[in-house]
Amino acid sequence: MFNTVTVVGVGLIGGSFSLGLKDHAMVKKVIGVSRSGTSALKALELGIIDEVLPLEEAVKQSDLIYVAIPVDVTLPVMKTILDLVTSKQIVADAGSTKYALCKFVSDHPNRNRFVATHPMWGTEYSGPEAAVHDAFKGRSCVICEREKSDPEALALIENIYTILGMSLVNMEAESHDVHAAYVSHISHITSFALANTVLEKEKEEDAIFELAGGGFESTVRLAKSSPAMWGPIFMQNRDNVLDVLNEHITQLRKFKSCLEKENYDYLLQLMENANKIRRILK
Amino acid sequence: MFNTVTVVGVGLIGGSFSLGLKDHAMVKKVIGVSRSGTSALKALELGIIDEVLPLEEAVKQSDLIYVAIPVDVTLPVMKTILDLVTSKQIVADAGSTKYALCKFVSDHPNRNRFVATHPMWGTEYSGPEAAVHDAFKGRSCVICEREKSDPEALALIENIYTILGMSLVNMEAESHDVHAAYVSHISHITSFALANTVLEKEKEEDAIFELAGGGFESTVRLAKSSPAMWGPIFMQNRDNVLDVLNEHITQLRKFKSCLEKENYDYLLQLMENANKIRRILK
Repeated sequence: MFNTVTVVGVGLIGGSFSLGLKDHAMVKKVIGVSRSGTSALKALELGIIDEVLPLEEAVKQSDLIYVAIPVDVTLPVMKTILDLVTSKQIVADAGSTKYALCKFVSDHPNRNRFVATHPMWGTEYSGPEAAVHDAFKGRSCVICEREKSDPEALALIENIYTILGMSLVNMEAESHDVHAAYVSHISHITSFALANTVLEKEKEEDAIFELAGGGFESTVRLAKSSPAMWGPIFMQNRDNVLDVLNEHITQLRKFKSCLEKENYDYLLQLMENANKIRRILK
Repeated sequence: MFNTVTVVGVGLIGGSFSLGLKDHAMVKKVIGVSRSGTSALKALELGIIDEVLPLEEAVKQSDLIYVAIPVDVTLPVMKTILDLVTSKQIVADAGSTKYALCKFVSDHPNRNRFVATHPMWGTEYSGPEAAVHDAFKGRSCVICEREKSDPEALALIENIYTILGMSLVNMEAESHDVHAAYVSHISHITSFALANTVLEKEKEEDAIFELAGGGFESTVRLAKSSPAMWGPIFMQNRDNVLDVLNEHITQLRKFKSCLEKENYDYLLQLMENANKIRRILK
């Protein structure tokens, strides 16, 4: 489908996207752009990309440029890319926040070459080694402000995600950021905070290591996530994240109060209410 | 190895224990004791148990009685059992708290027939349908106050867990409860509270359903856990759980403060510290 695709950022998301394109024979050549020489070499070695080039040269050679780097760096990089692209090229991003970026590019003369996307997939690992085949399969991909993208560019991007096995969800950028705070960002904050709780209080690391059953591991695994990736997400989505975080602290205080007052009935009520999540999760 | 084993509580843990005994040909017959007729029938139907009997009759016929019911009900049931057993029978429990039970039975004339254990395994599901083969394999099992159990009884129980693939960890009951608060109980509270947070604030359930990626699901899955099982655990381990919960709220407040003050450097520090959990988790 494409002759040449550039992936800016050759880590967990960019790397997995590139593997997906290759696995489904959607591209002849993938160029990698990376600030880190080590990552670029690793991605080459793993067959995730076929060539490494500086951003400007890579953009010039590409039909599609896919940006998967921390959301703060995405803004200036996206400007550089949109300044360079012609009306035959397509640009898309994979960032976990959408409002700041959509606002940032809204007046750019080449705005219509850009498609704002967020494939809802990730793991706690980062770098080219974290990239996997079939990563996006069975997950949702949010597309924001589709009316601002050129219809053909949009159709091509939607087609890629569909071939990768994703179901498409349309959303306003602002709504996306609210929902993402609930279903993704808060989970990362609680996990980071839980790891710090245990590291602070539990000095016998052997005990954690030996005893940690499935429960602990699954609630704390996101604490292994990359600070360079997640810090900018929390900052860009600050208001929504603070809103959810305040509510979460309130909910934890309810449990605290139940225990302090030995109010068993209310404790059961809180847990029974939480059980309603069964209805929503698959 | 055993002619007859009674499993008191035929749910997630008792059911999985029974399947393990059968899979490894360690028992000829398993009797199930259950307050719920529905669960008893289901366990029979699933081949988890071979017969259903009232507690006293079951105990009389058994070489080993394994108690896997909520930790509050365990106390009176354990008294009934210890009142009945002879010096040839063995009793063990699988409860998530150990201090209250060990204290409760400490002066019983048959204390030495009892082995206090906690196999560190579980899922968010409950009831006989939740029982699985090879459940305990590769996990740790804590044994408390081993010096208070008859050496032969202890050796038989340790042997069972070893055959089921567990590694044994010896611990004082009080230490067990402190560690369990960190590596298990707090994870359940944060998960219950996270579910309530999202249910409270996110009224668009379709959005959760469509968008929830792996992150949300893994941090919130424990919120599906049984209130009847977890309420008594939190109450019995109240002081330790409150201690960890207070620390967790403090850690969450640090994230909140970083966001409010836009203190990006401290936010990165908090996340980098949390990353240290990589060292401890497998």
